[in-house]
Amino acid sequence: MPQGQPTTVPDDGLTTRQRRTQPVLAVHTGPGKGKSTAAFGLALRAWNQGWPIGVFQFVKSAKWKVGEEHALRVLGASGEGGSVAWHKMGEGWSWVQRSIENSEDAAREGWEQVKRDLAAETYRLYVLDEFTYPLHWGWIDTDEVLAVLKDRPGSQHVVITGRNAPAALVDAADLVTEMTKVKHPMDAGRKGQRGIEW
Amino acid sequence: MPQGQPTTVPDDGLTTRQRRTQPVLAVHTGPGKGKSTAAFGLALRAWNQGWPIGVFQFVKSAKWKVGEEHALRVLGASGEGGSVAWHKMGEGWSWVQRSIENSEDAAREGWEQVKRDLAAETYRLYVLDEFTYPLHWGWIDTDEVLAVLKDRPGSQHVVITGRNAPAALVDAADLVTEMTKVKHPMDAGRKGQRGIEW
Repeated sequence: MPQGQPTTVPDDGLTTRQRRTQPVLAVHTGPGKGKSTAAFGLALRAWNQGWPIGVFQFVKSAKWKVGEEHALRVLGASGEGGSVAWHKMGEGWSWVQRSIENSEDAAREGWEQVKRDLAAETYRLYVLDEFTYPLHWGWIDTDEVLAVLKDRPGSQHVVITGRNAPAALVDAADLVTEMTKVKHPMDAGRKGQRGIEW
Repeated sequence: MPQGQPTTVPDDGLTTRQRRTQPVLAVHTGPGKGKSTAAFGLALRAWNQGWPIGVFQFVKSAKWKVGEEHALRVLGASGEGGSVAWHKMGEGWSWVQRSIENSEDAAREGWEQVKRDLAAETYRLYVLDEFTYPLHWGWIDTDEVLAVLKDRPGSQHVVITGRNAPAALVDAADLVTEMTKVKHPMDAGRKGQRGIEW
């Protein structure tokens, strides 16, 4: 239940209110489904709070998450909650004018923009979707990412999704959920289907 | 990746297309966060397909999921995707006129309506949020639920969330994800906060 009582009260000199508004770094990892889906579900809560939301899709193909993107764009434009900016590596980041063929370079360009936005406090919630992969593959330096996140100003929440989250990222995160695959239709020979998988 | 290849091709006499449009029973269980959140993320995809969505919140308090509810209501009313009907046990199911003090009776009333809607094919996606609890507690008979779900007409997808999913439900489901808690801010004495927890 969301409003349970903490099991320990830390001796950190902070009030409950101060602890409550600390920026959260969340990681959704593991081989199961629901990592990104839960991050976009979290974005619904942020939107409801009126927070500006920045989504950075660190995937080669821009085909995925069309449903989530459409929904969040409609929400962002509804005028009832927060704004939504949706950035896709697969289509070429909108702020990069030249074409980047190399996924490694493209991922780095994405991270550079995230850094600029964190410094400028552009968003209140960042969804760094599939961001664990460029970290896992060593394209982006995990230590640098953690240093930047540690020093981010204000109350900016960050959710990072993807398999194989580096151990240092898991250590640094405030909230880590591992999605474990118990059973999947593909095991029974069923392909992914519209509305369920994308 | 969503469009991976199945590892086996079953000898069930169905075409890939037939298998693709088979109704899915998904279960999000386990002690970690993201069970409901991922279900509501899934609802974004269903909405994008233009599917009518029925949410049944099987919880005593209606306070939770305000963000998701607001977002899905705005989406449902946007005219761009599917419709959204949101039913809350905590406020008293809208179709029940009398007051039900007893949670067990209230949960059963919820299930009776789900049965009627499945028979009428009212929705294309059903989110039965926290529905594992009345099953786990024996308030609603799991075997009956499984029999009704097995025989549901058409292509109606059902997502059931909550801890302690009965083994028979896990066996019957097409897709089961277990959310494992790796780390949570409450462990460090931080209370839940707005926009993150609700």
